[in-house]
Amino acid sequence: MRGELTPITEPGARFVELAEAHAADFAARADGHDRDGTFPFENFDDMKQSGFIAAPVPAELGGIGLTSVRDLAVGLSRLGRGDGSTSIAVNMHLFSVWTMQRMWRGVQAGGEGPPAPVLEGLLKGVLGGGLIAAITGTEAGTSIRYPNTEVTPVDGGYLLNGYKIFGTLSPVATVFFVPARLRGDDGAYESVLCMLGRGTEGQDIKDNWDALGMRASGSGDVAYKDVRLPAANVIRSGTPLGDRPAAQGDPGATQLGLLASFLGIAEAAADIAVNLAKNRRKGPGNLPLAERAWMQQLIGEMDIELATARAMLDFNGRHADEMINAYPRRDMPEDVQREAERLHQAAKYVIQRNAISIVDKALTASGGAGYMSKSPLSRLYRDVRAGPFMQPYSPPEALEFIGRVALDQPLGPDL
Amino acid sequence: MRGELTPITEPGARFVELAEAHAADFAARADGHDRDGTFPFENFDDMKQSGFIAAPVPAELGGIGLTSVRDLAVGLSRLGRGDGSTSIAVNMHLFSVWTMQRMWRGVQAGGEGPPAPVLEGLLKGVLGGGLIAAITGTEAGTSIRYPNTEVTPVDGGYLLNGYKIFGTLSPVATVFFVPARLRGDDGAYESVLCMLGRGTEGQDIKDNWDALGMRASGSGDVAYKDVRLPAANVIRSGTPLGDRPAAQGDPGATQLGLLASFLGIAEAAADIAVNLAKNRRKGPGNLPLAERAWMQQLIGEMDIELATARAMLDFNGRHADEMINAYPRRDMPEDVQREAERLHQAAKYVIQRNAISIVDKALTASGGAGYMSKSPLSRLYRDVRAGPFMQPYSPPEALEFIGRVALDQPLGPDL
Amino acid sequence: MRGELTPITEPGARFVELAEAHAADFAARADGHDRDGTFPFENFDDMKQSGFIAAPVPAELGGIGLTSVRDLAVGLSRLGRGDGSTSIAVNMHLFSVWTMQRMWRGVQAGGEGPPAPVLEGLLKGVLGGGLIAAITGTEAGTSIRYPNTEVTPVDGGYLLNGYKIFGTLSPVATVFFVPARLRGDDGAYESVLCMLGRGTEGQDIKDNWDALGMRASGSGDVAYKDVRLPAANVIRSGTPLGDRPAAQGDPGATQLGLLASFLGIAEAAADIAVNLAKNRRKGPGNLPLAERAWMQQLIGEMDIELATARAMLDFNGRHADEMINAYPRRDMPEDVQREAERLHQAAKYVIQRNAISIVDKALTASGGAGYMSKSPLSRLYRDVRAGPFMQPYSPPEALEFIGRVALDQPLGPDL
Amino acid sequence: MRGELTPITEPGARFVELAEAHAADFAARADGHDRDGTFPFENFDDMKQSGFIAAPVPAELGGIGLTSVRDLAVGLSRLGRGDGSTSIAVNMHLFSVWTMQRMWRGVQAGGEGPPAPVLEGLLKGVLGGGLIAAITGTEAGTSIRYPNTEVTPVDGGYLLNGYKIFGTLSPVATVFFVPARLRGDDGAYESVLCMLGRGTEGQDIKDNWDALGMRASGSGDVAYKDVRLPAANVIRSGTPLGDRPAAQGDPGATQLGLLASFLGIAEAAADIAVNLAKNRRKGPGNLPLAERAWMQQLIGEMDIELATARAMLDFNGRHADEMINAYPRRDMPEDVQREAERLHQAAKYVIQRNAISIVDKALTASGGAGYMSKSPLSRLYRDVRAGPFMQPYSPPEALEFIGRVALDQPLGPDL
Repeated sequence: MRGELTPITEPGARFVELAEAHAADFAARADGHDRDGTFPFENFDDMKQSGFIAAPVPAELGGIGLTSVRDLAVGLSRLGRGDGSTSIAVNMHLFSVWTMQRMWRGVQAGGEGPPAPVLEGLLKGVLGGGLIAAITGTEAGTSIRYPNTEVTPVDGGYLLNGYKIFGTLSPVATVFFVPARLRGDDGAYESVLCMLGRGTEGQDIKDNWDALGMRASGSGDVAYKDVRLPAANVIRSGTPLGDRPAAQGDPGATQLGLLASFLGIAEAAADIAVNLAKNRRKGPGNLPLAERAWMQQLIGEMDIELATARAMLDFNGRHADEMINAYPRRDMPEDVQREAERLHQAAKYVIQRNAISIVDKALTASGGAGYMSKSPLSRLYRDVRAGPFMQPYSPPEALEFIGRVALDQPLGPDL
Repeated sequence: MRGELTPITEPGARFVELAEAHAADFAARADGHDRDGTFPFENFDDMKQSGFIAAPVPAELGGIGLTSVRDLAVGLSRLGRGDGSTSIAVNMHLFSVWTMQRMWRGVQAGGEGPPAPVLEGLLKGVLGGGLIAAITGTEAGTSIRYPNTEVTPVDGGYLLNGYKIFGTLSPVATVFFVPARLRGDDGAYESVLCMLGRGTEGQDIKDNWDALGMRASGSGDVAYKDVRLPAANVIRSGTPLGDRPAAQGDPGATQLGLLASFLGIAEAAADIAVNLAKNRRKGPGNLPLAERAWMQQLIGEMDIELATARAMLDFNGRHADEMINAYPRRDMPEDVQREAERLHQAAKYVIQRNAISIVDKALTASGGAGYMSKSPLSRLYRDVRAGPFMQPYSPPEALEFIGRVALDQPLGPDL
Repeated sequence: MRGELTPITEPGARFVELAEAHAADFAARADGHDRDGTFPFENFDDMKQSGFIAAPVPAELGGIGLTSVRDLAVGLSRLGRGDGSTSIAVNMHLFSVWTMQRMWRGVQAGGEGPPAPVLEGLLKGVLGGGLIAAITGTEAGTSIRYPNTEVTPVDGGYLLNGYKIFGTLSPVATVFFVPARLRGDDGAYESVLCMLGRGTEGQDIKDNWDALGMRASGSGDVAYKDVRLPAANVIRSGTPLGDRPAAQGDPGATQLGLLASFLGIAEAAADIAVNLAKNRRKGPGNLPLAERAWMQQLIGEMDIELATARAMLDFNGRHADEMINAYPRRDMPEDVQREAERLHQAAKYVIQRNAISIVDKALTASGGAGYMSKSPLSRLYRDVRAGPFMQPYSPPEALEFIGRVALDQPLGPDL
Repeated sequence: MRGELTPITEPGARFVELAEAHAADFAARADGHDRDGTFPFENFDDMKQSGFIAAPVPAELGGIGLTSVRDLAVGLSRLGRGDGSTSIAVNMHLFSVWTMQRMWRGVQAGGEGPPAPVLEGLLKGVLGGGLIAAITGTEAGTSIRYPNTEVTPVDGGYLLNGYKIFGTLSPVATVFFVPARLRGDDGAYESVLCMLGRGTEGQDIKDNWDALGMRASGSGDVAYKDVRLPAANVIRSGTPLGDRPAAQGDPGATQLGLLASFLGIAEAAADIAVNLAKNRRKGPGNLPLAERAWMQQLIGEMDIELATARAMLDFNGRHADEMINAYPRRDMPEDVQREAERLHQAAKYVIQRNAISIVDKALTASGGAGYMSKSPLSRLYRDVRAGPFMQPYSPPEALEFIGRVALDQPLGPDL
C-alpha cells in the first residue's frame, strides 16, 4: 500500500510478512464473524501454526526475536487491515509476550524482575501455542488502578473473587493475568497481580460479548468466584492500591499495537474509498468519481490524515524503542516514563481521531454504498469507534493528562 | 429539554405536541426494530390515528393547517429523539403533503400548478390515512436529475420501467411519485414525474433494506416493470432531462425535516450523556463524573455543537418561511431560490456534521457503556451517520455548490 | 451583502441604515488609524452628529428608541465591516445606553432600579453628545468580579484608588463607570460601582494603547488616585465581593454588540476574498481564480462559517429579545439568566472562532497579497484575534462554564 | 525543550548546536527588527563567522558536511525559535547549498549535473561568506512554473528582463538564481535558470518589504532590466515552459527547512504559554493558572499539536533522507518523486496548520497579555501566518495535489 510503514528490524520484517499473509485470509472471514458475533478461532489456529504468536519470543529460546515495539505495531497495522477484532485480540497476547521477553532480557542484564525460569516457562508455553490474556483490569464502576477484585489469604495461598469486563481474547487465552487488591494487616490495600491458567476452578469465562463493533474480539466478562491460587501465583507489588508503579519498564508503548490495529482499519477504509473513486462511474457524464474536484479534495484530506497517523505511530514507536534500548535493565526514571507516556497519549489521541475521520471520509466517498450492511465499510465504521474507549485514557482525559505533565502539575488520584 | 427549539405558529404548537407524545411511544420500540431490521408499522398506525400525518393539510380541508416549514422541522426533531428511522420515513410523506398544500394555496393565489381538485383529492386521501412516498428518485449509477427509469408511450398512456433504490417509507406508502425520463421525437429526453398507487401491477416493493443504521426506515428497492400508467398520471415537465426546474417553489426547505430528524438524534444522545455524567459514579473517589473537569469540557463542547445545530435549523427555517410567504404564487425568481438553497446547504452541512460529532462525544462521555449493543447510543451512532448521504448534496459536493454560488459560477451538469 | 442579517424592528432599521452610512466613511480611515495607532475622533463626531450614539435612547426622550439587542447587534455588524476598532469602542457606549433605557423602562414598569431622574439625566446627556464608557472592570492579576480598585469612606463621600486596563473608548468617554470594592466594618468587601465624569481630579486617562490589533479602539489604561466622589456616585450593591449579582437584568446580551463587530470584520474579509477570487487572473491559463476547484471549496467552507456565525447571532439575539420582553421589570429568575448566558457563551464561542477562521481563509484565498501591510486583510487578521480575549469568557473557560451549567454543577469562584 | 527533535547525524549535531547558540542571540534582536521592519544584517554576520552558513558544504571541501535534510530542518527549527525571519531567510541559502553538495556528490557518483568545478566554486564561495538567494521565482499574476521574466539572446549572451517578488534574503545575497523563459525559434518557450552575482548592472534590489509578519526577512522585490549575462550563466533546461522537470533530485525536501522554521515559531509560542501558565497567578484565589482545569485542557491540546508537527517533520525528514540516499546519482524515478512530494505536502499542510493553531492557543493562554505589541506572542502570531503562503502549495491546492496523486489523476497545468 502506498505510503505504508515498513519494518526497520530484521525480525520485524519477518513478523510483518506473516501479518500480511494472515490478513489476507482473515479479511475473507471478517464480515461473517462480525455479523454473527462469533470468535474467529480459526484465525488463532493459523497464527499458532505460523509462529506469529511467538514472534517476540527471543531467538535464543526459539522465537522470531522481535524486540522493536515499533515493528510489532507495524505488523499489527497490517493485521488490522484484514480484521480489527483479531488484531486487537492477538495484540493483548503479543504485547504480553513482548513484555516478558523484555523482562527476561532485563533480568539477564542485571535488572530486577521475575525469575528467569518463570519467564522462560511462559515464553516456551507460547511457542507451544499458549495465548496470554494481557492484564485486563477493567471493572465496572472503578478505574484501572483501583480494582475491587480481591484476593484474601487462605491456608498457603489465596482466594480470588471479582468480576472483570472487556476480557478481550478470553475465548482462547490459556493464561490470565488478573489485577486485584489485597488487604494488609493495617486495613490498607496493596495492588497485586494474579496469574492463572484457563479453566482454573471458579473462573467463569462468559460468552456474552455483544457490542457495536469489534464483535469478533471475544471481549466478554470473566468472573472469579473463590478461585484458589497458590501463593506463587499472586505477585505482590508492595505498593498501595492506586499508586503508580515506580518502574513500569515499558514507556509509552502499552497501546502501540492497539493504535496500529486502528491505523490498519483506517488504511483498509481508505483503500476501499480510493478504489471505489477510481472505478465507480456516475451519470450523466459517466466519468469516474476520481475526476471530480470534490472527490480529489476529500481524498486529499483523507490522505493527510493517514500520513499523520502513520507519522505518529512511527514517531512514538521509534521513541519507545530508543527509550527501551537506553534502559536494558528496565530501570527507567519516572520522569522519562512520564515524558514517554505524554508522547504516547498524544499519538493515541491523534491516531484514533484520525482513524475515525478517515473511515468517515471513506463512507462519504462511497456515496450510499458504504452504508449498506454488506459493505465492509459498515463494519469498519463500527470497529474503528472502539479506539477512544481503550484505557488509559479517553480523549478528554488524555488532554488533562498531557496538560498536567506539560505544566508540571501532579496527576492526582483520578488519572 | 433545555434550550430546545419551540414552535412559533399555532398549528406548529399542535404538531409539536403530537410529535412529543408519539416520540415517547416510539422510543420504547426503537431498539427492537433496529435489532430486527423491521418496519414499525404500529408507529404509522398511531400517527394516522392522531392526525399527525395530516398536519400540513389545510384547516379548510380538515387538517391542522401547518404551513411553517420551520415548525414542521421542530416537530420532526422531537420525533427524531424517539426514533430516527420513523422520523425520516414520515418526513418523506409530510414534506410531500406540505408541498401539496403549498401548491394548493399557490393555485388559489393565482399561481401555476396542478389542478386544485387533483391536489384536494390527494390531501383528502391523507386525511383518510394515505401515505405519500416523496419523490424518491435515487438510482444506482446516476444522479438524481438524470434518471434512467423511463416511460414509453403506449396506446393512451405509458409504460414505466426502472429500478429505484433508497425507497424510504415504501413498506406503507399508498401513493408513489416516481421521476422518469421520456424520449421525445427528436431523440432527446424530457423529465417527467409519474404518480401511481401502491400495488399497481408491475410495481415490486422489495423488502430488502439492510443497512448500518436507520434500519427501521423501510428504505428498500422498488422495481417497475412494464407498469401501465394512464396519461394523466405522467406529469410532463416540458424541460430537458437534467435541467434544473425553472421554479421549484420550495426554496431551501426540501431537507429541513430530515435535518431536524438528525438534530433529534443528537438531542437524544446528548441527553443520555448528560444524565449518565450526572448519575454515574466512579471509584476510587466515587464522585459523579459530572464533577470531573474533563467531563465538563466535553459536555461544554457538545452543548455548543447542539446550540449551533439548533440555531442553523431555526435560521434556515425562518428564512424559508419568509421566502415562502413572500411568494404565495410560487413564482420565486431563480436567484432567490439559489440563495435560499445556499443557506439550506450550509444548514445541512453544519447540522449533520454537528449531529455526528455530538453522538461521538456522547459515546466518549459514556465510557465503554455506550458501545454495548444494548445501549441506545450504539443505535444512535449508526443512525446519525445516514445524514450526509441525503441528496443533494454530500458534504464535499455541498462545499462546491456553495462556493460556486458565492462566486457567481455556473453549477455545471454534475451538481 | 448576500445573506446578511437584516433588522426586524423599525428603530432597528433606522439604526442599521445609519450604521451602513457610517461604515462607508470609517472604512476609508481605518487603515490609517491602524497604522498610526491613533484614535478616530472624527468617527465619533460623525456618530454624535447623526444621532447614532443615541439610538437606544427612548423615543419618549428624543432618541431612536432602539430596544432590540438583536438589531443593536445587526447595526454593529455593519459598523464592524468598516472599522472594527470603532465598532467595539462605540459598542461599549451603546450597550450602556441600552442598559439605561432598559432600567428606565423597568422602573416605569414597577421594577427596581436607579431613580428615573438619574437615568433620564444620563440618557439626555447622550442626546447631547455624551459618551459612556461601559463598566470596564479589567485589572491586571485579578478577575472581573474581584476588583482590587477600592473606595474608602471619607467625609461625606469616598476616595477612589485603583488602576484599570483595557479602557476601551476612554479617549472620548464623558462618563465612566468603575467597579470597585468597599471594605465593611466587619472587614469583608462589598462590590460597588462608581460613576464619574471625565476629567474628575485624580483620574489619569493614559494614551498608552499599543496592541497587535484593534489599534484605533482607545483601550489604554485609566488610573485613579485619590479621586474624591460624592456618596451618590458610589452605587452600593449590598452583595459581597465576588458574588454574582442576583438580577443582572440583561440575559445573554452583554457581548452581543461585540460579537457583531467581529462578525462584521469577518464579513468584510469574506467580501474581499470573494471579489479577489472573481477578479484576479493567474497564468498560464489566465482564468479567474473563481474557476479553480480548490478556490470554490475554500470559499464554500468560508461561506458556511459565515452563515453559521450569522445564525448564532440571530438565534442569540432573538432569544435575548424574547427574554427581555418577558421580564419588563428586570426580575428575571437566576436559572433563566443562567440558561440565557449559556446560549450567549455558545454564540460567543462560535462567532469568534468562525470569524477568525473566515479571515484566515480570506488570507489563503488572497495568495500572498493579503499578507502585505497595505492590504486591509492584514489589519483584519490582527483585529479579529481580539475577540476571544473579551471577558467573560475565554474559549476554554467558556467550555467549562457551559459544561457546568449543562451538568447542573456549581460555577465556583473562578468562573 | 521537552520533546524536541534531536539530530541523528554527527554533522547534524554540530549544526543544531550552532543553531541553538545563534537563536539565543537572535531572539534578543527579533522584536526590534520586527517593529522597525529592518533586516538583521548582524545575524548574518554572526552566521558567517560561526560557519553556520557553510554547514552543508562537504567536509572534503572544508564545510561541516551536513547531508541529512532532516537534521538541516531540526537546526532550522531551533533558529526559528529565536527569529523566524532570519530562519526562513537563511533557509533559502542553506537549502541551495545543500542542493549544490547533493549535485556535487551526484556528479561524483556518476550522475548528471553541472560540472564539478562550477559547483565547487559556488561551495567554496559559501565558505568565504557567500550567500545564495534560492531560486526565487515568484511573480505577480503567474504561477511558479510559468515565469514572465525572459532572457533574449544577444551577441554571445543574453539580456534578462523581469520583475520578481518575495525575494527573501535579497538584502544580503551575493549570488542569485532567477528562473526565466527563453523563446525558441519555433516561438515556444523553454524554461531556463539564470545565475548572477549581486550588483550586476541592471539588477535593482528594492528595499520595499512591508508585510504583516516576517518583517525582518528581507523579502522585497528584485527587478531585472536589460541585465547582460554571459551564455554560461543561463542554464538551459531543454524542457518547454511549464513542464515539470524530469528529475528534480530533491524529493519531498524543498520546504523542509521552511516547515521547520514554523515549527520553531510554534515551539517558542508554546514555551511562552507554558511558562506564563506556570507563573501567572490570578485573583481571587491567587493560584497559578496552571492549576486551572481549562488551562490544562488547552495546554494538552497544544501539546498534541506540537507533538504531531514534530512527528510529521521527523517522518518527512527521515523519508527524504532515505530517498536521497537510495539515489546517489539523483536519478530518482518520477513516481518515487511524486510519492515523496505527496508526503511532503501532507507534512507542510499539517505543520503549518498546527503551528498557527499552537500560536493561537498560546495567545489564549496568555489572556490579554499576548495581544500587546510588547509581547513576543504578537510577533509570532503575525510571523506564523506566512507559512501557508509558501509555494507550492497553498492548503486547498495541496488537498487537490494530494488527492490527484492518490487517485492516479494527472496534475494538469495549474498545479
